[in-house]
Amino acid sequence: MVVKIGLLGFGTVASGVPFLLEENQEKIEKAAHDSIEVAKVLVKDEAEKDRLLAAGHDYHFVTNIDDILADEDIAIVVELMGRIEPAKTFITHALEAGKHIVTANKDLLAVHGSELRALAEEKGLALYYEAAVAGGIPILRTLVNSLAADKVTRILGVLNGTSNFMLTKMIDEGWTYEKALQTAQELGYAESDPTNDVEGIDAAYKAVILSQFAFGMTVDFEHVAHKGISNITPEDVAVAQELGYVIKLVGDIQETTSGIAAEVSPTFLPKNHPLASVNGVMNAVFVESIGIGQSMYYGPGAGQKPTATSVMADIIRIVRRLKDNTIGKAFNEYSRPLQLAAPSDVKSEYYFSIDAPDKNGKMLRLAEIFNSEEISFKQILQQAADGETARLVIVTHEMSKTQLENVTDKLSKETDFTVLNTFKVLGE
Amino acid sequence: MVVKIGLLGFGTVASGVPFLLEENQEKIEKAAHDSIEVAKVLVKDEAEKDRLLAAGHDYHFVTNIDDILADEDIAIVVELMGRIEPAKTFITHALEAGKHIVTANKDLLAVHGSELRALAEEKGLALYYEAAVAGGIPILRTLVNSLAADKVTRILGVLNGTSNFMLTKMIDEGWTYEKALQTAQELGYAESDPTNDVEGIDAAYKAVILSQFAFGMTVDFEHVAHKGISNITPEDVAVAQELGYVIKLVGDIQETTSGIAAEVSPTFLPKNHPLASVNGVMNAVFVESIGIGQSMYYGPGAGQKPTATSVMADIIRIVRRLKDNTIGKAFNEYSRPLQLAAPSDVKSEYYFSIDAPDKNGKMLRLAEIFNSEEISFKQILQQAADGETARLVIVTHEMSKTQLENVTDKLSKETDFTVLNTFKVLGE
Repeated sequence: MVVKIGLLGFGTVASGVPFLLEENQEKIEKAAHDSIEVAKVLVKDEAEKDRLLAAGHDYHFVTNIDDILADEDIAIVVELMGRIEPAKTFITHALEAGKHIVTANKDLLAVHGSELRALAEEKGLALYYEAAVAGGIPILRTLVNSLAADKVTRILGVLNGTSNFMLTKMIDEGWTYEKALQTAQELGYAESDPTNDVEGIDAAYKAVILSQFAFGMTVDFEHVAHKGISNITPEDVAVAQELGYVIKLVGDIQETTSGIAAEVSPTFLPKNHPLASVNGVMNAVFVESIGIGQSMYYGPGAGQKPTATSVMADIIRIVRRLKDNTIGKAFNEYSRPLQLAAPSDVKSEYYFSIDAPDKNGKMLRLAEIFNSEEISFKQILQQAADGETARLVIVTHEMSKTQLENVTDKLSKETDFTVLNTFKVLGE
Repeated sequence: MVVKIGLLGFGTVASGVPFLLEENQEKIEKAAHDSIEVAKVLVKDEAEKDRLLAAGHDYHFVTNIDDILADEDIAIVVELMGRIEPAKTFITHALEAGKHIVTANKDLLAVHGSELRALAEEKGLALYYEAAVAGGIPILRTLVNSLAADKVTRILGVLNGTSNFMLTKMIDEGWTYEKALQTAQELGYAESDPTNDVEGIDAAYKAVILSQFAFGMTVDFEHVAHKGISNITPEDVAVAQELGYVIKLVGDIQETTSGIAAEVSPTFLPKNHPLASVNGVMNAVFVESIGIGQSMYYGPGAGQKPTATSVMADIIRIVRRLKDNTIGKAFNEYSRPLQLAAPSDVKSEYYFSIDAPDKNGKMLRLAEIFNSEEISFKQILQQAADGETARLVIVTHEMSKTQLENVTDKLSKETDFTVLNTFKVLGE
């Protein structure tokens, strides 16, 4: 039997699907127990259709989604258009038309995932999206299958290739943020509006999805605090290195006694931490759990073939389940009521970079402020002063989000001190 | 319904199974769609049984395998005894008695896997062994599921925690092999006879199993050339660092145009290679493939809870398939006829450490020998001579196994030169 699929979109990733189907045909058919065929491809308009045909792409291109929805031979709809709309409407209609869905659309899943999953469940249809988190890294299915008997306590992830490429250049080459961004844009890693990548929004979407798979809890995108890399200075990068750390933009989801906390923020990682060696556009998800202990899954976070490989793994799974007559189970069946952690339970070490007047008593005053919130210092570095101001760098011992908020508030009221940057520090 | 399992052995790993069943009961039952219970545990003799009962272990211990084989309520037999016999006989009898099998026994699977898999298939029973390769790393199921649409071209693995712990100490602390071994033995990482770990035999067993999952080919253990770490000197370690490399014991399986080649050998890894940061007892499997490109799976290679987590994932999969009525499919369905690579197709850069007389013309003679085999030099380092002999270190450009054999043969016939060590070097 041949299982027919309809592709929505024929951009970079989508064109990787036919590549794999052709290149690895025999292996894919053996794994799927059936052959798979791209029956129709939805493109934007007649102009795109003509362009693709002229470029030698030999597919049945259509410009109306109904041509795919009404085609009873098409069992699986693969959405690779990106963005929320019209993807959401198309997927909803496809589910209503009885099609199984594979998508790589993290924005959509992070924001409207609950709604789409409920519809798929109601209809007894598959909705798979392995490629939505860290493209080529098979982290979602691994959490479902291989960590089924384990209990995850924390996920730390380098989840955005663009910002990681930029930080790697800022660390290895001493580039400024601005130069790194410009190069990333020239290389096509960053869009002309880089906000989603550099401000941690893209990584926060992924953290939402990871929370569901690792902790069984659906946090809202609004619950994931996100802070980007745009205010990291060459001084921060240099001090991090001096103190034995590497700065990465890290998605961090942990379960405390009161619930889970998810955030994306620039984080000082000890140089010997496995995530510290994840460089360039590569991604990695580091998992702490009571069974395995520490494990890490490393690979490309984006790109045509890596993403298409994850998409194809989803397609194969659906074809296989159709054959086995076990279709319709949720991608992730692990579900618990959402409980968000109390800020007083979310603890970490922190780095503060502070400008202070170069005069007697400044360190005493600073110590008094931190002491009043019961925060103690782990490392202190005073950088060469110019006679007027001095740069003080402090790494604290573990403190809570509540303490962080309080001390930040107190420091902001001191006219002598200017807090330049505050970053999370991962303890050894 | 309750699915009952029989445990063979109650050593370190086996006792991790009840730990996970208790600690993560709810999650496991949700994933398995049924509850799981340890019905009987086979131990060696009455003395062990008494000892375990006295230690507070509240299980139905038996000393005769027939008590488990004849128990019709037991659906799954979990073998965690290790070694070939009596494990092989017990698993064979269990399959004949209609039990599904989960095992972590790499020696057994590497040597008698074909036979056991054939019996399981004939009987329509499951035979799963995720924990047999790199204990806590879910590499086998990931290769089956997530790389189903991909084509693996090379696997590089740090597959033995004991030797990696020793090498890490030799690199970071400058220890000799002897001191590293003694410490590993004191810490319980190495056995009193460390041969399997330090000579690459354990890693070669794992390479046999990885070959099946990654390339669909069943190589025999005898086809996996293995070379250990016992002749690595502090000088080799120091030179590696000077040239920008880290020495690791690496399992390497690659597909060439003529077939696959598998070997385990100390390998110079560029410092920025993801495997170079895998330290201590941790393991990692680095996968090169045409779809994902480069991915790595990192975690503990052994230990009670990590291994038990992989074993439990296998058990859950069986329970789930029993419920779905899809049991009996092979763990790995990817299979192609075995084709071994011609030595002339297996290429790498190599490191040579050579003692030579400290006199004129030695470098010329050495260059003549390598040149006669069309091998060119990438890096040369002459270490301070003592007036009598000089140490020459050479890293070659890529050459084949055939060239390696020929040049090694020629060098051995030269009375002036003594080849101290030859190691594989992974190119950037």
